[in-house]
Amino acid sequence: MKEIKKIGVMTSGGDSPGMNAAIRSVVRTCAFYKIECAGIYRGYEGMIEGDFIDLNARSVKGIINKGGTFLKSARSKAFRTKEGRQAAYNQLKKANIDALVVIGGDGSFTGGLVFNQEFNFPVMGIPGTIDNDIAGTSHTLGYDTTLNTVVDVIDKIRDTASSHNRLFFVEVMGRDVGHIALNAGVGAGAEEILIPEEDLGLERLLESLRRSKESGKSSSIVIVAEGDKTGKNVFELKDYVEEHLPEYEVRVSVLGHMQRGGSPSCFDRVLASRMGVKAVESLLDGKSNLMVGLMNDKITVTPLERAIKGQSKINKELIRVSDIMSV
Amino acid sequence: MKEIKKIGVMTSGGDSPGMNAAIRSVVRTCAFYKIECAGIYRGYEGMIEGDFIDLNARSVKGIINKGGTFLKSARSKAFRTKEGRQAAYNQLKKANIDALVVIGGDGSFTGGLVFNQEFNFPVMGIPGTIDNDIAGTSHTLGYDTTLNTVVDVIDKIRDTASSHNRLFFVEVMGRDVGHIALNAGVGAGAEEILIPEEDLGLERLLESLRRSKESGKSSSIVIVAEGDKTGKNVFELKDYVEEHLPEYEVRVSVLGHMQRGGSPSCFDRVLASRMGVKAVESLLDGKSNLMVGLMNDKITVTPLERAIKGQSKINKELIRVSDIMSV
Amino acid sequence: MKEIKKIGVMTSGGDSPGMNAAIRSVVRTCAFYKIECAGIYRGYEGMIEGDFIDLNARSVKGIINKGGTFLKSARSKAFRTKEGRQAAYNQLKKANIDALVVIGGDGSFTGGLVFNQEFNFPVMGIPGTIDNDIAGTSHTLGYDTTLNTVVDVIDKIRDTASSHNRLFFVEVMGRDVGHIALNAGVGAGAEEILIPEEDLGLERLLESLRRSKESGKSSSIVIVAEGDKTGKNVFELKDYVEEHLPEYEVRVSVLGHMQRGGSPSCFDRVLASRMGVKAVESLLDGKSNLMVGLMNDKITVTPLERAIKGQSKINKELIRVSDIMSV
Amino acid sequence: MKEIKKIGVMTSGGDSPGMNAAIRSVVRTCAFYKIECAGIYRGYEGMIEGDFIDLNARSVKGIINKGGTFLKSARSKAFRTKEGRQAAYNQLKKANIDALVVIGGDGSFTGGLVFNQEFNFPVMGIPGTIDNDIAGTSHTLGYDTTLNTVVDVIDKIRDTASSHNRLFFVEVMGRDVGHIALNAGVGAGAEEILIPEEDLGLERLLESLRRSKESGKSSSIVIVAEGDKTGKNVFELKDYVEEHLPEYEVRVSVLGHMQRGGSPSCFDRVLASRMGVKAVESLLDGKSNLMVGLMNDKITVTPLERAIKGQSKINKELIRVSDIMSV
Repeated sequence: MKEIKKIGVMTSGGDSPGMNAAIRSVVRTCAFYKIECAGIYRGYEGMIEGDFIDLNARSVKGIINKGGTFLKSARSKAFRTKEGRQAAYNQLKKANIDALVVIGGDGSFTGGLVFNQEFNFPVMGIPGTIDNDIAGTSHTLGYDTTLNTVVDVIDKIRDTASSHNRLFFVEVMGRDVGHIALNAGVGAGAEEILIPEEDLGLERLLESLRRSKESGKSSSIVIVAEGDKTGKNVFELKDYVEEHLPEYEVRVSVLGHMQRGGSPSCFDRVLASRMGVKAVESLLDGKSNLMVGLMNDKITVTPLERAIKGQSKINKELIRVSDIMSV
Repeated sequence: MKEIKKIGVMTSGGDSPGMNAAIRSVVRTCAFYKIECAGIYRGYEGMIEGDFIDLNARSVKGIINKGGTFLKSARSKAFRTKEGRQAAYNQLKKANIDALVVIGGDGSFTGGLVFNQEFNFPVMGIPGTIDNDIAGTSHTLGYDTTLNTVVDVIDKIRDTASSHNRLFFVEVMGRDVGHIALNAGVGAGAEEILIPEEDLGLERLLESLRRSKESGKSSSIVIVAEGDKTGKNVFELKDYVEEHLPEYEVRVSVLGHMQRGGSPSCFDRVLASRMGVKAVESLLDGKSNLMVGLMNDKITVTPLERAIKGQSKINKELIRVSDIMSV
Repeated sequence: MKEIKKIGVMTSGGDSPGMNAAIRSVVRTCAFYKIECAGIYRGYEGMIEGDFIDLNARSVKGIINKGGTFLKSARSKAFRTKEGRQAAYNQLKKANIDALVVIGGDGSFTGGLVFNQEFNFPVMGIPGTIDNDIAGTSHTLGYDTTLNTVVDVIDKIRDTASSHNRLFFVEVMGRDVGHIALNAGVGAGAEEILIPEEDLGLERLLESLRRSKESGKSSSIVIVAEGDKTGKNVFELKDYVEEHLPEYEVRVSVLGHMQRGGSPSCFDRVLASRMGVKAVESLLDGKSNLMVGLMNDKITVTPLERAIKGQSKINKELIRVSDIMSV
Repeated sequence: MKEIKKIGVMTSGGDSPGMNAAIRSVVRTCAFYKIECAGIYRGYEGMIEGDFIDLNARSVKGIINKGGTFLKSARSKAFRTKEGRQAAYNQLKKANIDALVVIGGDGSFTGGLVFNQEFNFPVMGIPGTIDNDIAGTSHTLGYDTTLNTVVDVIDKIRDTASSHNRLFFVEVMGRDVGHIALNAGVGAGAEEILIPEEDLGLERLLESLRRSKESGKSSSIVIVAEGDKTGKNVFELKDYVEEHLPEYEVRVSVLGHMQRGGSPSCFDRVLASRMGVKAVESLLDGKSNLMVGLMNDKITVTPLERAIKGQSKINKELIRVSDIMSV
């Protein structure tokens, strides 16, 4: 196996807080081991175009606390074709890049895996996505920050909700998994949490809201994950509830993209730093096709294949806790 | 004129950060002058129902930094009727309340003015609304806090915008006036700001976005006030721009109710404290039908009538500054 | 064993963010199981005085996001005497309290253990302290919030450090353990971290700072835990460094008590909610003398005795990561 | 008079939030008027060394929300000598810089004024300092942000103060003027505020604290400006109070440098944007030796000489408000 003298690092897919911290860690670990590092702009798209930048330890100062990704991110149709991947490989060779660290979600890892299989090119993955929907890690990069952002915003909304004795439906991100909704819902003291993993039925929602009113609650927050199973979007839910429970005045808030941004939490910065070290050291140890993850507070690795196919499960205990807290 | 021995304080209309700080100030100023103070729950609605609470200096501890209003707020249809106002008057008399401080917007002041005219009841107003749309004060309570909330959120959105080279339309509050949009737009470094006071036309927007692209800007934020004059809502604007400028990938974010909440800024806390003192002292001086305001950094009073009818103008200089900054 | 019909909950020792959320959880879990709950003011001191308050599910609304503890906390000399504990027991009996949830640190748990041994009174502990110095849980309540507070403040200090090319020594809490210093140090991108667990020697610090200068770093932050082993306090360290490295202009910042306060992070709110449920359910299951903890992301219990005597170890991997990041 | 084709911009003295936003505004206004702009690193020190960088509209993207100053700041002994200033002049000439915008405090303005007198070089000042101690402007750049930072930290300290029924002395910046102490003190609900402008005497402080205790306050915050007139520093004050009022357990917190940093508030960003435009336009209009300021919410100019010699007065009304709020 070829000795690794230069590593390329890129961010791919939706941005998440901590990506910059992870890039910094990859770059500095390379510097620590006295190998070179190149940043690849705009994910696989920039790889195909050879849009690279040499990075040294000083290049990444002052970014550990910045949201987004200074290497930028993009989706790439071209990389889904054999020609695109060949072009990307040629660019990497031309730039003497020997191995790759891909920071992103399962789509990005799938790309990396295919690339490895075709060109036998060493690839390590770092899970960067706010959704926490990757198997093989208890926390993806950015997830903890997003939870704090969401509870902070819901705290603000609650100021208005309780000033006016209103019911709010707040839609949070999470198309396939309810991690954000469930955790931020418990953290924000939501009365009810609707997630893709559970179909409690609309009747139960009405029941719960009726009980809230009877128990003397003057205002309520219901968290709705984008992908919840009620079959209604958040505005339709509002109409449904207002029709069936006219005693409620309902407001809707869709949090949207702000959930992705912001300065990463300490947890995400530390996680990013640890993951970057492990990714580079794994490559230097001759490993490939692995994703760095956090399991039981320890940094581990999982085959990329498993990370992609696996399912990140929500914590059922939290559903119980949420029910008890809404008493 | 009757000596004032007990003052009632209430919040009315949409809540805004700083309302609790203003209540605290009214209560403590009453305590300082050794007169009684009663809190009136849920605005005019609670006044009609006699939903009062005696408040002393210690009752309001720990609230200066809390968003919303612990006295709650509500709209009251009943108060628009003569019978409703008579009932409210009876309740005030029964509770020995001699004068009123109303914290709210122009609708609340109109109610107070009518009430004064019918019952010769002393009323002072404190402008509490995030929209800054009241004449007679350069700043309404909560406006400064909302500006900080909005730029903080747009900073987060920009992380994603610049990571993905995207264009975002961000809708902020302001149905009739563009204060929030204009100031937060300049503060957040927005490329274009659409406000109700100006109809720049959609062609100019396209022109500006074309110029942005040419000048090398990789991402852009356009701020849209709720009440802007383009005739299109923010989602229609997105469609319009994507149709005419296919080089742009547009995302929309509607900030919504979170803009009302949160811990007040130092400015709003200080302003609330000053206004509460002035409101109580004005009543004790035998004055009525005035709104406390801030003009040229000094606390002043304006006839409620003028505050209601007047128009709070946006600062045209800021439009120029915004244009220059978008160069 | 006596059936439990009423649980007392108290906070004891230094306050930490999440204590209110834990109280809320204990209270609501009691309500869920239809048993009574009493709050005990000012820890063991209030227990001796019988300073109790009945709490129901609505009593604890709106506190999940508040720092500090509304039940207040205090040290109690009297509780260290047999007479004090007897008085406390009498008060609990008089108030029909059958079991106790103590939210606090190891000192508070020691008190609870002694109390249990003397009076056979059921006691459960919830670890509430920012220092994360309790065995049997990977995270104490408040620790995660404090890390975010600390990195946020150091981010601000770095603005000045890098504007002026200065070296800052920042002292953070942690008398016996370096968890805060180590994690916040990595999170804030500190160049060097001095913790009680390691005596790297002053010469190594100078060496590291010399290397920083040579590698082109223009500004540096060194984190010092209160209890570090250099034998010098943070101001003496400044003098020492300025004497030996005259090329550095050093500033000192002692973060102090602000580290304890603030709205809890989502993580701490969720953890508090889970721990409160487990504490009450354990008591209802007839258990006692246990501390609720988080191990490998799961809620567990540990004998109080072990929690008190055990040692919470820092993560050695993080020291390595910190060294690599400072390259 | 020579036509201005290139403007140099620099930051000097202590950094303050909003400096980056002001640089951005100067640079973009130059771009708007199609003249060149150079950034001067490290204030007068970098001017002497010719440490310049060409800046265009894109160079300053993404900095409006960043604390500190990317042009860095430094004190310069050399610039106090005739030779130093001559060297600086030579560097400016060599770089074809025709005029100067100095962002800083009165020391920086004095340097600019002397420079102008010696070399007839056009100079405009923008007041950037957190202390708000400059005549000719109601607000200096960074002051509003610092107030928010300070009240936010004191809110955190109050969590602990009220959890433990303690008295805190909190020292804030302000060597000669009490603006920060007075405004943040009112904003944070401090019981007493000690500022350089007033010597209330220690006896009054004791009196006020005695009264607090009697009126049932369980915890208190006293704000102390660095330069207060009691003749005791904040630690000596603690000892003094504990000696005379043994019923109080006193803690001290010195906020220190964190007060300078952080993302600027919306107010400071807008102010910076407006000031930068005015500074450049004034130079293009042939003006010099003026400081841009905010008076009565309008952008104005004041002779630098007056800004330096003048005195920024605290608002006596606020002292009254503070007294009333502490009832």
